[in-house]
Amino acid sequence: MKDDLMQAVEFSHFVFHQHIAEGATVVDATAGNGHDTLFLAGLVGEEGIVYAFDRQEQAIANTHALLCAHHLERRVKLIKDGHEYLGKYLGMTAVDGVLFNLGYLPGGDKSVVTKGETTVAALQAGLNLLRPGGIIVLVAYTGHPGGREETAAIFRFLRTLAAKEYNVARYSFLNQPKGPPQVLMVKKRPG
Amino acid sequence: MKDDLMQAVEFSHFVFHQHIAEGATVVDATAGNGHDTLFLAGLVGEEGIVYAFDRQEQAIANTHALLCAHHLERRVKLIKDGHEYLGKYLGMTAVDGVLFNLGYLPGGDKSVVTKGETTVAALQAGLNLLRPGGIIVLVAYTGHPGGREETAAIFRFLRTLAAKEYNVARYSFLNQPKGPPQVLMVKKRPG
Repeated sequence: MKDDLMQAVEFSHFVFHQHIAEGATVVDATAGNGHDTLFLAGLVGEEGIVYAFDRQEQAIANTHALLCAHHLERRVKLIKDGHEYLGKYLGMTAVDGVLFNLGYLPGGDKSVVTKGETTVAALQAGLNLLRPGGIIVLVAYTGHPGGREETAAIFRFLRTLAAKEYNVARYSFLNQPKGPPQVLMVKKRPG
Repeated sequence: MKDDLMQAVEFSHFVFHQHIAEGATVVDATAGNGHDTLFLAGLVGEEGIVYAFDRQEQAIANTHALLCAHHLERRVKLIKDGHEYLGKYLGMTAVDGVLFNLGYLPGGDKSVVTKGETTVAALQAGLNLLRPGGIIVLVAYTGHPGGREETAAIFRFLRTLAAKEYNVARYSFLNQPKGPPQVLMVKKRPG
């Protein structure tokens, strides 16, 4: 029996487990220290591929080191650029899932944070490439400067998505004083 | 791979699967047509027990018939009374989980609905008996008359729960025009 309700990152992985099969093409829009990239590389298996974006050199280096330690670096294309430029690197590649873990790089410069404008641009770029049946999952934070504004921008965007084409859900916490992260999910309905 | 994100009732059962073990003592606070009661009777196994409340005769009869059809009626104590009187029937019995599926009886009189005041009283009664590690899960509707007010009353109550003692989460939908039901969860932290 579980000691607590699922936390946000755990929940985001759970949704990927439910909706992503081996052999999938997925995007880690925020490589960070590589924990999500490693999870995704395991999930997609030998035949799958992960495109992992981060605009910080330190994040790319940390992610590369973590992947190499697990001998999974060959499943991952690491791209040192902002996730809003996703389309430039993927072209017309159809993707099965996109994962965002927003905010700042843990252990890095906390003043470098993801922002509403670029996050929404990346979301739109991800939706453009998303296969029917695919998912986009975001872990969003409100506890750091700019976090509330970014989360509000994401909400505004997600509420505009056509209900017939997409189903959008949220997993959040109600009584915690520090405002723990929440999860936002977009499922593109199968064709 | 799943065709859609989990719907509210499916999610409520999923949370029970994660947190309730065989042999548990649980409450179905809204027996209705017995679907949740049947699910709970299966979940708690031979050694478990389900207390199922409903104030409508038709609900009690439908639930009893469904349980008998599955030969699980011996695991369930059916109580024809409002769930706000839970304490009267359970006394000091410790419970591992309480499930609410609010609103009206499907196929019954749609003017007979659960209401904020009694639902919150039942929630409080459930919390009084809840074991450390136990959960309360509610499926809440806003599409019928009174639904919004009831859901608002539940939110007001849940937000007052001490973060150190309880973790409260929500699973909801953002872009669906008809306002599908949402799930509210309370986990009592292990002692």
